[in-house]
Amino acid sequence: MSAAKRTASPAFGEDEIVALIRRLTGPPPKRLLTGIGDDAAVWQPSRSHRSLVTTDALIEGVHFPRELALRDAGFRAMAANVSDLAAMGARPVLATVALGLREGTTLDEIEQLYGGVVACANEARMAIAGGDLTRAPVLTVAITAIGEAAPARLKTRAGARPGDVVATTGELGNSRAGLDLMREPGSLSGDVAERAASAFARPQARWREGLFLAASRNVHAMMDCSDGLSTDLARLCEASGVSACIEAVPVGAAAAAMAARLGRDAEAYALAGGEDFELLVAIAPRAYAHLAARFRARFGRPLERVGVLREGSGVTWSRNGKEERIDRTGWDHFA
Amino acid sequence: MSAAKRTASPAFGEDEIVALIRRLTGPPPKRLLTGIGDDAAVWQPSRSHRSLVTTDALIEGVHFPRELALRDAGFRAMAANVSDLAAMGARPVLATVALGLREGTTLDEIEQLYGGVVACANEARMAIAGGDLTRAPVLTVAITAIGEAAPARLKTRAGARPGDVVATTGELGNSRAGLDLMREPGSLSGDVAERAASAFARPQARWREGLFLAASRNVHAMMDCSDGLSTDLARLCEASGVSACIEAVPVGAAAAAMAARLGRDAEAYALAGGEDFELLVAIAPRAYAHLAARFRARFGRPLERVGVLREGSGVTWSRNGKEERIDRTGWDHFA
Repeated sequence: MSAAKRTASPAFGEDEIVALIRRLTGPPPKRLLTGIGDDAAVWQPSRSHRSLVTTDALIEGVHFPRELALRDAGFRAMAANVSDLAAMGARPVLATVALGLREGTTLDEIEQLYGGVVACANEARMAIAGGDLTRAPVLTVAITAIGEAAPARLKTRAGARPGDVVATTGELGNSRAGLDLMREPGSLSGDVAERAASAFARPQARWREGLFLAASRNVHAMMDCSDGLSTDLARLCEASGVSACIEAVPVGAAAAAMAARLGRDAEAYALAGGEDFELLVAIAPRAYAHLAARFRARFGRPLERVGVLREGSGVTWSRNGKEERIDRTGWDHFA
Repeated sequence: MSAAKRTASPAFGEDEIVALIRRLTGPPPKRLLTGIGDDAAVWQPSRSHRSLVTTDALIEGVHFPRELALRDAGFRAMAANVSDLAAMGARPVLATVALGLREGTTLDEIEQLYGGVVACANEARMAIAGGDLTRAPVLTVAITAIGEAAPARLKTRAGARPGDVVATTGELGNSRAGLDLMREPGSLSGDVAERAASAFARPQARWREGLFLAASRNVHAMMDCSDGLSTDLARLCEASGVSACIEAVPVGAAAAAMAARLGRDAEAYALAGGEDFELLVAIAPRAYAHLAARFRARFGRPLERVGVLREGSGVTWSRNGKEERIDRTGWDHFA
C-alpha cells in the first residue's frame, strides 16, 4: 500500500507468497465459491444467499505514517475493507476489529482510532460485531468485513470480455497526492491541498456505486483500485484472460497539481497512485453509454472511461498517437 | 494471553477498553444477534441459518515467545479462533488470514507459519478463504474464522441457570505448564514434558465436543477457557447473572508436575492457567449424568465436573471444608 517504504526481501514478492499459500491450502472446497486472489472470498450459507468476507491489516509506520491522525488511520482501515466488498457488488453487513495497542497507548488514542473505524462503518451502514484486543509493538488495526449479495449480482475480476469498455467510478491519484503532501507539508495549498489530504485520510469506499453497477448484467467484472490502476488493471486482465488498452487516465485535480509540483507526468502519476478505492469496471460496449448516463444521474459525477479490453494479455497505454506496453508501477508490498 | 508480559498502562484494563468500544459502536442492529462480548458474533444470513464470526490476532513476543516454532505459532493462532466457534456450538466453515511479516522473513519461515495455520484448519475441516499480506515490525497473524449453526443449537455465555452443573471438556493447566517449560527448558521431563509442550504448542480446539454438547437442550451456556478457569467462569456467571461454586479443579498431569516443581498449589495453578481451550459448560442438573456418560462414550475421556451454579454473583472455591471467594487470576492483556 501507498505508505509503505519499499524495502524488505529482494528474493521474492507478493506473488511468490500467494503461490506458496495456494499450494499449502490446496484447492478450495465446493462451498467456497471464490477463494484466494479476488477482492473477497465468497461462500454460500444457503442456496439463495452469498456471504463475502475480506480482511485487511493496517500497521503504523507501514500503512500509515505516524503523523496521520489516529481517527483517519481507523477510517482508512475500515474503508479498505468496505472497498473490497464494494468491488464484488456486495452490501456491507458487519465487521470485526482486532486492535493491537503499543505500550503507553491512552484511552483517548483508542477512542480516536476506533472512532474513525466506527465513522466509516456507519457511512457504510455496517455493524461492528466484536473483535480482539492485544498489545503490539506498534498500533495495528486488522479488520475483517462481511457482506452479502444475491447470487446473480456477484461480480469478480474474472468475467471481463474482449471488447468491453473499462471505466472507473472516479478520478485517480488524489490519495497519492495526499500522501506526498503529508510527507512534504506545504507542497500544495488551497482547494487542491484539501482534496489531497481528504482523499488520503478519509477515502470513500464506493459501496453504493458497487451495488448500483452490480445490478447490471452488462457489468462483466469489477475490482477496486487499491494498488494503482496500472497494477490493478493488469490483475483484472490476467484474471479474465484479456488485454487492455488505456486511452485516457482520469487524473484527479489534486494529483495533477502534485504532479506539476514534482515535475512529473500527471497521467503516469495517477496511473501509479494507489488507494483511491475507485472501482474498476468492465462493461459490455453496447451498454456503456446508457449505464454511464444513469451513473451520472445517480451519483452526480461521471463514470470515467479509461479504455477497452481486447484479446491477448498485458496492458498498453495509447497516447500521442503511440501505443506502448506498460509495466505494473503500483505497489507490491514485498517487492 | 499466556505469553504476555504483564506491563502496559496501569490506568485502564481490557474492560475499560471494551466499555469505550461499546459506547462508540452503539447498540447492535437487529440482524446482529449477539455482538461484542461473547466468543463470536452471530448474524442471520437467512431465517434458517446463523453465521458466526470471530477474530484473534497473535503477535510474536506478545502472544508467543520467539522460541516457539513458527509452525506451532500458526497452529495456535488458528486454534484460538476455532475454539471461539466451538464455544458457541458452531461448525467451523472458513477463515481469513492476515499475515504481517517482519523484514528479512524468508519464504521458508512463511511456509512453516502458514503450514501450521493450514494444519489446524484441516483438522477442523475448514477452508482458508484468503487474507492479507503486509510488512510488520514483528510477525503477526490475525485470523478471522467463520462458522455456522442451526438457530436452535447456538449457545452463548448467557443462558446458565442457578442449579446447573458446571463442567469442562478436559483437564486444565497443561498449556500453562508448557509455557513455563519453554521459559525454563528441562524443568519437566519424560511424558509430562511431552504433554506440557504439546498442550502449549498445538492446543486442540474442541469443536467436535462443542457440536456434540450444542445438540443438547440441557446445555444452557458454553464458552472456552482461554484466559483461565477463574477468569472465564467469572465471565460466564456475569453474563448469566448467576454465581458459581468450584468444587473440583480438573488438574492436568503436566500442570500437576509443573506446580510440584514450582512449589505451588496444583489446583490454583490450573485455575489460573489459560489457553487450554477446553469448553466450559453449564448443564441442567437432572441431565448431567446421562450427558457425561454419552460424552465419555463418544470422546473416550470424562466430562470434568467442576462445580455448581447458584443465585447471586461471583465465584467461590470450596475445599478442605471451607468455601472462599476467589478473584480472577487469569489474563487481562492490559491490566
